Amino acid sequence: MSIAAEMNAMGAAARDAARLLRESTNEQRNNALHAAAANLQKRAAEIVEENAADVQAATACGVSSAMLDRLKVTADAVRAMARGLEEIAAFPDPVGRELARWRRPNGLDIARVSTPIGVIGMIYESRPNVTADAGALCLKSANAVILRCGSDANRSCAAIHAALVDGLREASLTEVAIQLVKTGDRDAVGMMLGGLDGAIDLIIPRGGKSLVARVQAEARVPVLLHLEGICHVYVHEKADPAKARAIVLNAKMRRTGVCGAAETLLIDRAVLGSLGVSILNDLLAAGCEIRGDEAVGAVFPGAKPAIEDDWRTEYLDAVIAVKTVDGIEGAIRHIETHGSHHTESIVTEDEAIAERFLAALDSAIVMWNASTQFADGGEFGMGAEIGIGTGKLHARGPVGIEQLMTFKYVVRGTGQVRI
Amino acid sequence: MSIAAEMNAMGAAARDAARLLRESTNEQRNNALHAAAANLQKRAAEIVEENAADVQAATACGVSSAMLDRLKVTADAVRAMARGLEEIAAFPDPVGRELARWRRPNGLDIARVSTPIGVIGMIYESRPNVTADAGALCLKSANAVILRCGSDANRSCAAIHAALVDGLREASLTEVAIQLVKTGDRDAVGMMLGGLDGAIDLIIPRGGKSLVARVQAEARVPVLLHLEGICHVYVHEKADPAKARAIVLNAKMRRTGVCGAAETLLIDRAVLGSLGVSILNDLLAAGCEIRGDEAVGAVFPGAKPAIEDDWRTEYLDAVIAVKTVDGIEGAIRHIETHGSHHTESIVTEDEAIAERFLAALDSAIVMWNASTQFADGGEFGMGAEIGIGTGKLHARGPVGIEQLMTFKYVVRGTGQVRI
Repeated sequence: MSIAAEMNAMGAAARDAARLLRESTNEQRNNALHAAAANLQKRAAEIVEENAADVQAATACGVSSAMLDRLKVTADAVRAMARGLEEIAAFPDPVGRELARWRRPNGLDIARVSTPIGVIGMIYESRPNVTADAGALCLKSANAVILRCGSDANRSCAAIHAALVDGLREASLTEVAIQLVKTGDRDAVGMMLGGLDGAIDLIIPRGGKSLVARVQAEARVPVLLHLEGICHVYVHEKADPAKARAIVLNAKMRRTGVCGAAETLLIDRAVLGSLGVSILNDLLAAGCEIRGDEAVGAVFPGAKPAIEDDWRTEYLDAVIAVKTVDGIEGAIRHIETHGSHHTESIVTEDEAIAERFLAALDSAIVMWNASTQFADGGEFGMGAEIGIGTGKLHARGPVGIEQLMTFKYVVRGTGQVRI
Repeated sequence: MSIAAEMNAMGAAARDAARLLRESTNEQRNNALHAAAANLQKRAAEIVEENAADVQAATACGVSSAMLDRLKVTADAVRAMARGLEEIAAFPDPVGRELARWRRPNGLDIARVSTPIGVIGMIYESRPNVTADAGALCLKSANAVILRCGSDANRSCAAIHAALVDGLREASLTEVAIQLVKTGDRDAVGMMLGGLDGAIDLIIPRGGKSLVARVQAEARVPVLLHLEGICHVYVHEKADPAKARAIVLNAKMRRTGVCGAAETLLIDRAVLGSLGVSILNDLLAAGCEIRGDEAVGAVFPGAKPAIEDDWRTEYLDAVIAVKTVDGIEGAIRHIETHGSHHTESIVTEDEAIAERFLAALDSAIVMWNASTQFADGGEFGMGAEIGIGTGKLHARGPVGIEQLMTFKYVVRGTGQVRI
């Protein structure tokens, strides 16, 4: 079978699965999630072994240690995946919820009711655990999913996927509810972006710039965008020094590889030589490289000079760009010009200034006196997530169970006709 | 200036306008709407005159009388547009509404707050009143909009647009909040679909199949789809005969040119020869052409034979396709196979059957014992609308003020860092 025929057959199977899932019960889907969790534990040794083969091949290809780190799956990581599935199962049924209901003067009873989107195409790179997370989130939300992992993680993902399919089978749900693209051929990605003959309702890409660029150029179906997180912390002149030091250090250094990590620090000129220097000392002591503008260099000799590119770079590493600004308008202008509309935080004790920052910025998440590392579905109390959406449509911020739903209107009448 | 330079300049101006609108007040936007309504009245004679020139040119080109009908603007129609603007102004402020707010165990206060989408690109054909409706809905929702009308309506739309700009000016809002593409060059549409160098956040197309096909092929930015409305009425064997006759006649014949008009009638075989014949007699007496399957032809000689294409044709005319089905599963299967996921209605007194129909179908609007002609934002109590969305993402069903909004998360802390 050609790749095109194979992919279109997967699309048709997913479409059928979506129809069945739409009428499945929450209990059936939870049964499948519990069974999948048990099967992940049962297959842990096999998953770790298959992963070792992926890691070995990647090592032979000379990939970076950061990438190897993301590829690696330990027995602990398998346990964490299984736990994640149990947590997703514990969430309430997202299907058929009445989001609103009202009655019209003519007696028509109108309800807005949550329904699954249908078929999700998930395209991701590295991190094999996305197979379990995304598969489970889609199943819980009664969506069929076609998963396409990076080819360097093929064996790991196939082993994890097998445990999910075991779970579907044991719960008597269709096994094609969660499909994994087997071929490493990159044409498969293009076919998914084309929609597989109308089968795919939504593409969710998770990966680096080249994947995102390809998706934006080729997608013929709606996309839930996850751009990079060029997150800012703005230290206002009326910041509480202790809060500012703790928040900046945490926002940058707690984990540098997450999309909610701060990449640029904006400091009011009025406090640059005082609080600013303390903050930069903290960062330097924690092993962070500092790239500052001229004013920063003048008060902090440990800083390297920042170039224009630094203001729009997602380092995902122990590096921070530091820019001096003259008050909140300068901070807002910098973020609007260089940001990626992900997450921005202001540190200040001045409520009016804080509210201005929160209102003026058009990012998915805006914060006051809190670390940008809270940009996470779990931390928001929304449960597991597929990522942080940076687009404007449908879902912004954490994309979890609720964001994988759409709705329809249900109108109940007693014979009404329109005048 | 080249068309590309001109269009990109419009995009940049719209992006700036969106920034200003985001921080405008509801009162300012309402002032502009009231002033625009007054200016529409003031310019009524000019609008009708410009429209007459468009109609004359279209007549000379030999366009159909149905199209001329949609193009025509009377003084009454101008008054209706002005009234529409006043009604839109009367709606509550959609910006900055707290859609949800909760507190996390660590004290973080998280709110989901409504915000404008940004810049809307509206591409439409004929019906010049869309200029006023879409312009006003976007302004009320604090979105900047770039309007591109069909070239046959250019002079009418320019005259209407001038009244909107007068309103913006009188309310001291930026005049580029509502822009109209002046060139008739079809390349302008392609440029809008390309996003005007990142300026456009959302494309809303309203038009025929060729426009929709072009948008689906070329759009590089999110699209709010409005496909055709192949709406079904299903008369179940337990239908109340009086309700069934009234609903089918209304759903098909009240206005045949609206997207919520019924195009296909499904009748249970058990009642085809009795209630079915009465319904078909009603339709025929009202001037409706009937295209039926074999069973229909056998009991109703006035029917022409339906061909396969009839099941997927949006007539927008006094024609109906009639198909015999064996119970609800046959009806659901037919709709899922041939429908456009717009609006479907079941007529029955059996509640369990009705609920099965409402749950099983994946259309934007599903109805029980009501005419499909209620598929309309005004009839839903949601106010004026740009159209009925048939896609799955962001908004389905009526697209009005609320559906032109997105949201962001506002997180208020007291110095929290993530562990």
